[in-house]
Amino acid sequence: MNGFREALEKLRSPYVEELKNWIDKEIDGIYKIKSKKLQESKDGKKFLLLTLEDRTGSVRAIDWYNAESNDEKLQVGHVVNVRGRVVYFEERVQINVLNEQDAVRRLSENEYDIERFVKSVENVDEMYKSLLRLIDTIRDEDYKTILQRFFVEDKNFVEMFKSAPAGMRIHHAYKGGLLEHSLNVAKLVDSICKIYGQLDRDLLVTGALLHDIGKVKEYMVNYNGIEVTTEGELMGHIVIGVEMLSQKAKGIPYEKLLKLKHLIASHHGEFEWGSPVLPKTPEALVLHFVENMDSKVNRVMQIIDKEDREKSWSEYDSNLSRRFFLK
Amino acid sequence: MNGFREALEKLRSPYVEELKNWIDKEIDGIYKIKSKKLQESKDGKKFLLLTLEDRTGSVRAIDWYNAESNDEKLQVGHVVNVRGRVVYFEERVQINVLNEQDAVRRLSENEYDIERFVKSVENVDEMYKSLLRLIDTIRDEDYKTILQRFFVEDKNFVEMFKSAPAGMRIHHAYKGGLLEHSLNVAKLVDSICKIYGQLDRDLLVTGALLHDIGKVKEYMVNYNGIEVTTEGELMGHIVIGVEMLSQKAKGIPYEKLLKLKHLIASHHGEFEWGSPVLPKTPEALVLHFVENMDSKVNRVMQIIDKEDREKSWSEYDSNLSRRFFLK
Amino acid sequence: MNGFREALEKLRSPYVEELKNWIDKEIDGIYKIKSKKLQESKDGKKFLLLTLEDRTGSVRAIDWYNAESNDEKLQVGHVVNVRGRVVYFEERVQINVLNEQDAVRRLSENEYDIERFVKSVENVDEMYKSLLRLIDTIRDEDYKTILQRFFVEDKNFVEMFKSAPAGMRIHHAYKGGLLEHSLNVAKLVDSICKIYGQLDRDLLVTGALLHDIGKVKEYMVNYNGIEVTTEGELMGHIVIGVEMLSQKAKGIPYEKLLKLKHLIASHHGEFEWGSPVLPKTPEALVLHFVENMDSKVNRVMQIIDKEDREKSWSEYDSNLSRRFFLK
Amino acid sequence: MNGFREALEKLRSPYVEELKNWIDKEIDGIYKIKSKKLQESKDGKKFLLLTLEDRTGSVRAIDWYNAESNDEKLQVGHVVNVRGRVVYFEERVQINVLNEQDAVRRLSENEYDIERFVKSVENVDEMYKSLLRLIDTIRDEDYKTILQRFFVEDKNFVEMFKSAPAGMRIHHAYKGGLLEHSLNVAKLVDSICKIYGQLDRDLLVTGALLHDIGKVKEYMVNYNGIEVTTEGELMGHIVIGVEMLSQKAKGIPYEKLLKLKHLIASHHGEFEWGSPVLPKTPEALVLHFVENMDSKVNRVMQIIDKEDREKSWSEYDSNLSRRFFLK
Amino acid sequence: MNGFREALEKLRSPYVEELKNWIDKEIDGIYKIKSKKLQESKDGKKFLLLTLEDRTGSVRAIDWYNAESNDEKLQVGHVVNVRGRVVYFEERVQINVLNEQDAVRRLSENEYDIERFVKSVENVDEMYKSLLRLIDTIRDEDYKTILQRFFVEDKNFVEMFKSAPAGMRIHHAYKGGLLEHSLNVAKLVDSICKIYGQLDRDLLVTGALLHDIGKVKEYMVNYNGIEVTTEGELMGHIVIGVEMLSQKAKGIPYEKLLKLKHLIASHHGEFEWGSPVLPKTPEALVLHFVENMDSKVNRVMQIIDKEDREKSWSEYDSNLSRRFFLK
Amino acid sequence: MNGFREALEKLRSPYVEELKNWIDKEIDGIYKIKSKKLQESKDGKKFLLLTLEDRTGSVRAIDWYNAESNDEKLQVGHVVNVRGRVVYFEERVQINVLNEQDAVRRLSENEYDIERFVKSVENVDEMYKSLLRLIDTIRDEDYKTILQRFFVEDKNFVEMFKSAPAGMRIHHAYKGGLLEHSLNVAKLVDSICKIYGQLDRDLLVTGALLHDIGKVKEYMVNYNGIEVTTEGELMGHIVIGVEMLSQKAKGIPYEKLLKLKHLIASHHGEFEWGSPVLPKTPEALVLHFVENMDSKVNRVMQIIDKEDREKSWSEYDSNLSRRFFLK
Repeated sequence: MNGFREALEKLRSPYVEELKNWIDKEIDGIYKIKSKKLQESKDGKKFLLLTLEDRTGSVRAIDWYNAESNDEKLQVGHVVNVRGRVVYFEERVQINVLNEQDAVRRLSENEYDIERFVKSVENVDEMYKSLLRLIDTIRDEDYKTILQRFFVEDKNFVEMFKSAPAGMRIHHAYKGGLLEHSLNVAKLVDSICKIYGQLDRDLLVTGALLHDIGKVKEYMVNYNGIEVTTEGELMGHIVIGVEMLSQKAKGIPYEKLLKLKHLIASHHGEFEWGSPVLPKTPEALVLHFVENMDSKVNRVMQIIDKEDREKSWSEYDSNLSRRFFLK
Repeated sequence: MNGFREALEKLRSPYVEELKNWIDKEIDGIYKIKSKKLQESKDGKKFLLLTLEDRTGSVRAIDWYNAESNDEKLQVGHVVNVRGRVVYFEERVQINVLNEQDAVRRLSENEYDIERFVKSVENVDEMYKSLLRLIDTIRDEDYKTILQRFFVEDKNFVEMFKSAPAGMRIHHAYKGGLLEHSLNVAKLVDSICKIYGQLDRDLLVTGALLHDIGKVKEYMVNYNGIEVTTEGELMGHIVIGVEMLSQKAKGIPYEKLLKLKHLIASHHGEFEWGSPVLPKTPEALVLHFVENMDSKVNRVMQIIDKEDREKSWSEYDSNLSRRFFLK
Repeated sequence: MNGFREALEKLRSPYVEELKNWIDKEIDGIYKIKSKKLQESKDGKKFLLLTLEDRTGSVRAIDWYNAESNDEKLQVGHVVNVRGRVVYFEERVQINVLNEQDAVRRLSENEYDIERFVKSVENVDEMYKSLLRLIDTIRDEDYKTILQRFFVEDKNFVEMFKSAPAGMRIHHAYKGGLLEHSLNVAKLVDSICKIYGQLDRDLLVTGALLHDIGKVKEYMVNYNGIEVTTEGELMGHIVIGVEMLSQKAKGIPYEKLLKLKHLIASHHGEFEWGSPVLPKTPEALVLHFVENMDSKVNRVMQIIDKEDREKSWSEYDSNLSRRFFLK
Repeated sequence: MNGFREALEKLRSPYVEELKNWIDKEIDGIYKIKSKKLQESKDGKKFLLLTLEDRTGSVRAIDWYNAESNDEKLQVGHVVNVRGRVVYFEERVQINVLNEQDAVRRLSENEYDIERFVKSVENVDEMYKSLLRLIDTIRDEDYKTILQRFFVEDKNFVEMFKSAPAGMRIHHAYKGGLLEHSLNVAKLVDSICKIYGQLDRDLLVTGALLHDIGKVKEYMVNYNGIEVTTEGELMGHIVIGVEMLSQKAKGIPYEKLLKLKHLIASHHGEFEWGSPVLPKTPEALVLHFVENMDSKVNRVMQIIDKEDREKSWSEYDSNLSRRFFLK
Repeated sequence: MNGFREALEKLRSPYVEELKNWIDKEIDGIYKIKSKKLQESKDGKKFLLLTLEDRTGSVRAIDWYNAESNDEKLQVGHVVNVRGRVVYFEERVQINVLNEQDAVRRLSENEYDIERFVKSVENVDEMYKSLLRLIDTIRDEDYKTILQRFFVEDKNFVEMFKSAPAGMRIHHAYKGGLLEHSLNVAKLVDSICKIYGQLDRDLLVTGALLHDIGKVKEYMVNYNGIEVTTEGELMGHIVIGVEMLSQKAKGIPYEKLLKLKHLIASHHGEFEWGSPVLPKTPEALVLHFVENMDSKVNRVMQIIDKEDREKSWSEYDSNLSRRFFLK
Repeated sequence: MNGFREALEKLRSPYVEELKNWIDKEIDGIYKIKSKKLQESKDGKKFLLLTLEDRTGSVRAIDWYNAESNDEKLQVGHVVNVRGRVVYFEERVQINVLNEQDAVRRLSENEYDIERFVKSVENVDEMYKSLLRLIDTIRDEDYKTILQRFFVEDKNFVEMFKSAPAGMRIHHAYKGGLLEHSLNVAKLVDSICKIYGQLDRDLLVTGALLHDIGKVKEYMVNYNGIEVTTEGELMGHIVIGVEMLSQKAKGIPYEKLLKLKHLIASHHGEFEWGSPVLPKTPEALVLHFVENMDSKVNRVMQIIDKEDREKSWSEYDSNLSRRFFLK
């Protein structure tokens, strides 16, 4: 989260997806070793074949000069600084490691930013501002107060909320995913309230922004990716979320608080999806459907985005038990 | 569907829910016999106790004058013309049948409008105009053409679509329910497209308006209420709907037609809900969620609307396996 | 809950199941009207046929003297004081109402104890003492502290806990049912810990006593029987229970508290049974199985107890989808 | 589908399963490269190890002469013409590639018949004649007319029907599988009609032959094996099949057509198996059971056939969740 | 089972469905009292209204002469001898009870045959002969021996098998149903073996005849209808059937016996349908499908047979969750 | 089962898990070859890399002296006698094979005890004595007689029971597992009977000891591990167990026998878990819950035991769909 250091690093250290702009130039980049193999060329010369990765993709690197010593020194999972020349080989981008001592050097944890290895959304600040504007539109003073206690006054919470994912693998599984998902759901229910006039719009938008707050404690992000915390495993984000809401509920009328807690407690919608109670207000029902839809749409959009646009069909997705049409 | 006749009938024939405005007046109304019992008063006098109903509710009627002959003549299910005086008795509205020959007279089918016995939405024409305006916003000429072939050019279809229900019991189970549901879904996906910029809005709105067209052949409305037709039982509205679309598809590019058919074919979303295919485009996924949400919201709103506003909780709804909060 | 008043009432007012000991004696009892019918004997005399009930059963009563006036005055659901003579008629116990003004008199809510109409366990105090002795055996000071805060120091909680049911219909659906169930589960896991040496016995017994505490706020008992509260419907006893535990957790080490919360949060064992998380410690797994077993055993024992011991098989129980063998 | 070319090819080009009859002879065969590895013998000589396959199995081939150039030239998936000598080596059949230029030569798509690489039933023509004979036994002129429009008059359909599979992986997953399955089901229901006298035999046999016709558009066979078409993914063979029937339904009485469509629409039998409607005639019920049984029996027979007859039990089949007894 | 007595009874005692042939004649019949009501005519005369039934239907009877004494003497469930005159009244057949002492007389259990009150198939002996002929066609001596031990040599078993039902409510729920079902299944698998040449026909036919033999001990028929025995409830017909087979298995090769036991043990096909093992031979798979199909077809045929042929659709059947088409 | 030979072997042949005590010593051990790879060192020297295993774990072995000849001679799955020196290399225990002819020598089946390769519980005899003591506490002579027929008089059964597993993979999947599970369940129900006074303790303990006896015929243990027998696949341990009980039931009152058979037949508890009947006595219900709990607890304890105690969470267990907390 150190924007300045990241900017500096980026100057000398392109992301993998940017390497295609560095052909025939030297780079001095930071990557993680994904795989490693010591091999022998036809003429008996040893070389070290590396696959390097960051959050944007992976690339092949070849070390012809210090193959054996580097093979002993380095291990899969090490984050390294690599100096090399970017070339095209067999129609793919490749890094040829320079003939220097320490052309490949292992970094300690404080020498790089884990941002390089964890996917995240780009426009976090923009989304956060959009969320604040939405809070401004809440007319019910109690709901507005609760939202402000979380999203304005509690700086620590805001920091966590902006960098948390909303899932581990299936949907919004990247830093900022929780903010993106919560904001999307809030915008969706907001526009749905214009069609269903009977709904309590302030309650519903508030619930949309708060429904997944427990995830800031359920997940943690490190350079291995997203992991579930002990608290997350043992309580789950629903129970955690209700507790977090209780802690900021001083002075809020009991009935309103109960309705909000119900939105959090029931948003999984069905018992078999881990909901301790079923939605029992129209607002809870709408929140469940919209929340579920946004998760699935996000999932599908990611599947589609990473496919080759030439194909008609995505690969089979075992989570959703189907392929998706790309045309 | 005969607005004029209904207007005339209404003049002389209040609906059950209007009877409270006719206390101590005579009415000449049309009702269906819901139950019938010949009884004897404490002083040995026979009287005929009737329960009469129309689409707005039911009311007690007492015939003290021709009890036995009317008991023989009438049967449960008969639609009758009743002349009587409206009174309050034991804190309820009641009709005292007049002492006249044929004060209760059975009607043949062409003497009344079945509208009196089937619930329907009020603002059909307004909703239809709203639907036409939505069609005007479609920019894709092919999708617009298909919509116009159904909703503008095919007068017979329009008539059926405006008076069909969208379900038998659970949701939108009244005349006009199909129009209401289709329009709601179309408006909802339209507003959702503003948030999900990647969706094909014209495809999705078109699919929303067409997804349930098969229901015009699946259900039929008569004075018993809503019944499933033989075609509906044997094919179901999904297969019927795809066939109806094919019949109006001349000249439409194959790929667009296929996407539309997919929206109809997959809108139930899961195999166990009778979907022959799963949604495999983002549009199909969104249509399924929104369609499902609108059905449930309609269901819940009806449950809430018919409850006493004094209570905190509705009766237990066995279809949704829960009570609903009314506050 | 007023033991003295109940004792007094009992003196003059036998429970229905005791009436068989009062044949040919006069009683002055308190019952609820379950049904009521004004009838006429073969010789044209009007009589009022009542079915009266309390928590122990129901009995027929006949009023030959003020049939019509009482028919007008009384309604199903009224709690009444009845003076009459107990007789055998057609092989059944029956109350012949006396020929007096007000032989059947409606009571206001403060004239009777709702205990008469709600089933409850008998040995509440004994069970509570047994629970306290179990708490004494806990060696871990933190767990013991929590238990004492609930079961010793919080008098209001103790009162509620002793009179709450553990279910609405299926199991332990009577006053004191929660205490009975919690104590049973605690004793069971205690004895199981002797066989599974690896389990943390103090944690498990503590969790057993606390797992259903949320039910003191989920249910309420009145003279209609057991009802779910608004808080119970909207949050469920799992979420409520975790919150109640949090409120008494000051000074308890975080890790222990988390394990206890996990026992509460996961005790339903499977998502489809409303568990927001799955059991992830051996203790949580054992608690789930034992808790489930005790509910089912209680259910079956009640089915068996109320059957005629002459029969080989109980009636079909639709909740458990089977009959039970009675021999 | 070019029988003559296949005959010619076969002369000079044995299938893999026939190679055991060519030991020590030279062949000039057509195979697909399944895997490829450049290796070095103990004495430092490079050789190219190939696995070649066709629809009957796979075989090892070794190229000692042009290993490196062929390694560069060839890729997995290429269909090649191989000249070599068939030998036994390490108890397995093997092809030793000849020392000639182009002993292994890549073929373009029009140089071979994809039949070599797709499994198919042998007796297609015999089965087709059997199907025609069955059509002759239909006494109802309307059903017979429909069958003839498909299976006699529509040459294009007949061609597709004879070469389509009835599944992708689980059952009848080979060319001709659809014909085999449809004929089997028709024969089975025919013989069942002799036992259930009340069934409409003509309707049922017709439905059996037509129930899966949509599969001619759902699947496509190419040298990669069986793939689902875009139309198949988006509509499924049930909806496609009903549409195909509609297109040949001119002049057929509405009621008969509806019954036939119902057989197609309901043959999956249960909603969770993708049936948009449940079977609602005895014929539809029987068709569903027989169709399902034939699929499973075919699946099991294939499992059994490919196992070693010495074993008592097949490998575990994860699709059917069991092993099968082979004795 | 006393054919002679039944013949005699029938002479003087028509079944309910035959009463339409006795209009204006006197009968002396045996029926069970289904309901009973003492009523008063308009002129103040008491009459006793009875509904009488036997296995063929129910009929109204009126006693004008001994209404009150008979009302006291008789109870619902009594089997009675009724003398009366058959008439048409209000378009229905009715019995006017004669003015005689004991015109309605209660019978003790040995005065009538319970056959009158339990539905049964008509052609039991014919079906049994058909079964014996099928046994003659078994070529494997071991399987034939087992079948003969049951169906030829064990007279007690034969008697039970011929009069047992194959179900309680859903299918073949009448005396002789087990024979009918077993024979049907055997004939069906026999004809299926002609199409699937690989099946072991002798094994399969033997298994078909034996698969449900446990039902002779699972059900018992008395004048209340069909009841499950204690042994049936506690073990189920699958476990009972395997045990019965073991007891007649002396000298049969172990492997054949095991295959037969497998057919019995697995014929429910899926765990959730109470099968302790899944079908693991092709024969077991076919037996399961055919057995299941025959149950459903029987169920549907009974639904259809009892409906009015004028209607297009049966009533909704909640067991199969659908209506059936009657045209 | 030859304890003496095993003792001898152990002298000269440490188990894998004991090798860490043999560093720098020579061993002469018996292991199975798990994997094998011929490799070349940097200086061009061939060596054979083996992974050896027994029931306690696996270890790396290197043969520098007869690499190529041993590579040809040995295959994965061979049981071998290995002479070598135990060393630490790269922080792991490793065996350096000696430079001798036959330092690695394949053994025939009678040269080793399969105990070396199958996991088993240690305290079989102690558990067996504990089981006998439990039998002594049974007061009902009939139940005691049955237990003695199995566990005392039938030496062959006792031998099988002591060495059988109770499962293949999920729980108690090792020799002695059946004894361990049965004894555990019996002890658990015994202690539960002290809390539920209404249960028939003798019946329940007897049922607990017998519930899984069919598993002695369902599984067989050989050097490949645990396999299901043909009888086990075709009948399952429930049906086998009931039959085994029948064979030892001479002279036992029918009713008691039936209750015991019911405990065996219903112990899987639900149809979908392969139970042919549901538990219909309180004892059957308790046996099901306890049996299920013991299986799960055993499963979880094994997961926990094999994890590194430093970690907080186990690996994800796909059978139970969760991770387990290790702290």
